[in-house]
Amino acid sequence: MHALSPTDSAFLWMETRNQPMHVAGLNLYTPPPGAGADFVSRLLARWGRQLQAQPPFNLRPVLRMGMWHWEEDTEFELDYHLRHLALPHPGRIRELLVMVSRLHGNLMDRNRPLWEAYVIEGLPDGRFATYIKIHHALVDGVTGARMMASALSPSARGQKPPLWAQQLGVHPASRATAQSQPGLLQQIGDVARAGRDILPGIGAGLMDMLRAGAGVTEVDGALPFQAPPSPFNVEISGSRRFAAQSYSLDRLRAIGQASGATVNDVTLAICAGALRMYLLAQKKLPKKPLIAMVPVSLHGETDAGGNQITLLLANLATHIEDPLARLQAIVHSTAQAKLRLSRMPRLQKMAHGMTTIAPLGPGIVTGSARRRPVFNVVISNVPGPRKTLYLNGARLDEVYPVSIATHYLALNITITGYGDALGFGYTACRRSVPALQRMLDYTDASIAALEQALAAPAAVATAKPARKAVRRKPSPTGRKTAATAAAAAVPPRRRRRAP
Amino acid sequence: MHALSPTDSAFLWMETRNQPMHVAGLNLYTPPPGAGADFVSRLLARWGRQLQAQPPFNLRPVLRMGMWHWEEDTEFELDYHLRHLALPHPGRIRELLVMVSRLHGNLMDRNRPLWEAYVIEGLPDGRFATYIKIHHALVDGVTGARMMASALSPSARGQKPPLWAQQLGVHPASRATAQSQPGLLQQIGDVARAGRDILPGIGAGLMDMLRAGAGVTEVDGALPFQAPPSPFNVEISGSRRFAAQSYSLDRLRAIGQASGATVNDVTLAICAGALRMYLLAQKKLPKKPLIAMVPVSLHGETDAGGNQITLLLANLATHIEDPLARLQAIVHSTAQAKLRLSRMPRLQKMAHGMTTIAPLGPGIVTGSARRRPVFNVVISNVPGPRKTLYLNGARLDEVYPVSIATHYLALNITITGYGDALGFGYTACRRSVPALQRMLDYTDASIAALEQALAAPAAVATAKPARKAVRRKPSPTGRKTAATAAAAAVPPRRRRRAP
Repeated sequence: MHALSPTDSAFLWMETRNQPMHVAGLNLYTPPPGAGADFVSRLLARWGRQLQAQPPFNLRPVLRMGMWHWEEDTEFELDYHLRHLALPHPGRIRELLVMVSRLHGNLMDRNRPLWEAYVIEGLPDGRFATYIKIHHALVDGVTGARMMASALSPSARGQKPPLWAQQLGVHPASRATAQSQPGLLQQIGDVARAGRDILPGIGAGLMDMLRAGAGVTEVDGALPFQAPPSPFNVEISGSRRFAAQSYSLDRLRAIGQASGATVNDVTLAICAGALRMYLLAQKKLPKKPLIAMVPVSLHGETDAGGNQITLLLANLATHIEDPLARLQAIVHSTAQAKLRLSRMPRLQKMAHGMTTIAPLGPGIVTGSARRRPVFNVVISNVPGPRKTLYLNGARLDEVYPVSIATHYLALNITITGYGDALGFGYTACRRSVPALQRMLDYTDASIAALEQALAAPAAVATAKPARKAVRRKPSPTGRKTAATAAAAAVPPRRRRRAP
Repeated sequence: MHALSPTDSAFLWMETRNQPMHVAGLNLYTPPPGAGADFVSRLLARWGRQLQAQPPFNLRPVLRMGMWHWEEDTEFELDYHLRHLALPHPGRIRELLVMVSRLHGNLMDRNRPLWEAYVIEGLPDGRFATYIKIHHALVDGVTGARMMASALSPSARGQKPPLWAQQLGVHPASRATAQSQPGLLQQIGDVARAGRDILPGIGAGLMDMLRAGAGVTEVDGALPFQAPPSPFNVEISGSRRFAAQSYSLDRLRAIGQASGATVNDVTLAICAGALRMYLLAQKKLPKKPLIAMVPVSLHGETDAGGNQITLLLANLATHIEDPLARLQAIVHSTAQAKLRLSRMPRLQKMAHGMTTIAPLGPGIVTGSARRRPVFNVVISNVPGPRKTLYLNGARLDEVYPVSIATHYLALNITITGYGDALGFGYTACRRSVPALQRMLDYTDASIAALEQALAAPAAVATAKPARKAVRRKPSPTGRKTAATAAAAAVPPRRRRRAP
């Protein structure tokens, strides 16, 4: 038994029934050719024989003398953690997202190790999904992503033990060590980029620290430190909605090449356009632009080596109607932010520290974040494996992170790379961010608007529709102008039967 | 907006992530002959058009000035409350019970009306289930059972609005009124019998009140006021297990007739036998007999009219090996308890009051119930409708209540009548009451032991195996002696794959 770090403990202390502190990964798979209808059952049977959990998957939190400790669960019961589900008829992606939304809103039993692994069958053509939920106190995003990837094989014939049965020697107590060992981390790619873990709850305390560290008083009004109140910066409920969709990386690269923006800036611009349409449809678009908190790696953009992980606040320019002008404003904003960061040698460390202690931010505790949000939304771009991976021969098709909504940060957008695609995952409080699923249409429309504005038919041609499987329905707006798209993408609100 | 009664508020105050305070009903249905594969989808489509919820299904709890109030949810979203699920392959009853166990462990979102209705497809032969979960603060068991029954039709051709859309004029504020209006309640049967609602958390304070009211000091050592410590009287975790099975009422009546016991006493004896086998298998059978708290109606057993609802503590005689001697000890115990009750005119009122304020019992709050439990287990026999009911033409086959486990009462047994069957529902903390599903085998074995001991082949002959659908597997022990059955009913513990 050993004590949790203050950071890890924070995720337990801050957790309430309205604010669960777990993250998850949603993966979609295609069984190998010729696999029988019982492929998923056989997978579960295979996994079900892995009765012993390795650290940290065998640890449960216990409170001793007012402090959280990890202790081994001597009554570990795989049956409880490994769960078989099926989608109801008609088994579309829509039903999957509804299911994941519900699962993600449920607290985990603290008397047991804080993880649940679901295998979900019933998608068309024998496809299936895994939804693996891990408490943020148990693993941070870096470790979790590494673990999830290392349970997959680069070969269709490879087989690895499941997540909980891997003897990685990873342990919450040794996290810092694990993160500083590139050798371990390199198996899923760039250490520094993997470090851009989405860290969900950044409190208002960050503001003060940034002010102190960055001399913000010098900053003019165009800089991103005046986030307006928005519907995303409210207290949240206990229900969640998750929406997700993938896009070809080539398509986003083409937009970047035509506009001189980085892919990161393009993803921000896509989100900005979608957020603008969403808020316009709700008649709640603030006059001032939304500010996004963006965990970002400086690796590859500076000459500095090592673990250049930091974050920046980006002006999303949601007050600008023209999509290209909005993109350019975002490029300007992130360039300024990076310039500012480069002048602050100590900030990288600070930012990293602040990110991890974020849930303790005084603004979130006191509620002051409501009237004066530091930023409106978290947009995180998390790189993933570039090569195709397999699970017992089943091809991993799509990867989506399911993140955390907190009080005053009711919406989280995490974008994750896998192969030649980027998966956009929207995690939100279902009540304060209603009809989140429409964000997928707006995301479609936002990309199309950028493409149209750039008159980039080549970019459109290289899009890979096959990568767009995770979406509620085909976008009706893909080739319209931004303005038309925004209007068309708002279907009349309908009440649907229980999906 | 109006304040909740102290009783109703108690269910909100006492609720924690380890101790959810909702109850549920699990119903199994057979679609009408010739119904298509889309019967469930059409049912959901029909229900999905009932967008407006009537009180109390449109009310959410809000805390004002330190008191809980109900207010209308002006953003009521049926989509959130009505849920479509499917069983994973192979879709047996076992998979259904696993699913219900999980659902029952999840807290509900307090920002919305506190109910969730699940329609679960994927059982063999097109059968389906509903699992409807309602917070105990929203409706008490009487009102809930009435509502659920009144949403069904006595005719295969009848159609009624779903639970939440019925204009019953029932409202938490008017509960007392509703309960005192037999006209409303008679549609599901006997008012007094329906009043035997299972009220789950009865604290140690009850002990003191019973002592005070009943002059327990006069009572000799054979009376049921010395419950031993047992594995059921511990702090509980947040995970639940639910197991359920039905038996022919005729079969239990035959045991009663052969032994001179009431059906209630027979159900207690069946549970006592099952509990004894369960504890023996765990090597945790206390030397002293377990004590059960039994909500009971005196209606039909006394000449008194009206709402004769009370409770008694029954000695389950689990220390006695011989099943008939155990049954006779139980009969003696309940007869003594009723005799004692009949001498206490004020006790009926007291008991009813104590039952409803039970979660506030000081023993539960302080933990003193652990070393000196007042009773070990709640066994409640809740009458249900006698006539066959239908849901849009689908025949209701089986009815099971899913109840509440609390700290120091980790196991709840509720038996509910429907038609000519009695459904036994076991609700327990999954961690402190491991392998609950074996209780079904022990229940089989317990009935068989009584039948064998009574040499009552007639009783066995009238058993209706068709009613035994809700069980994990055929009992291997049905026709053995009690002793053999107890041994044989303990299969070697196996780890199963995620069901």
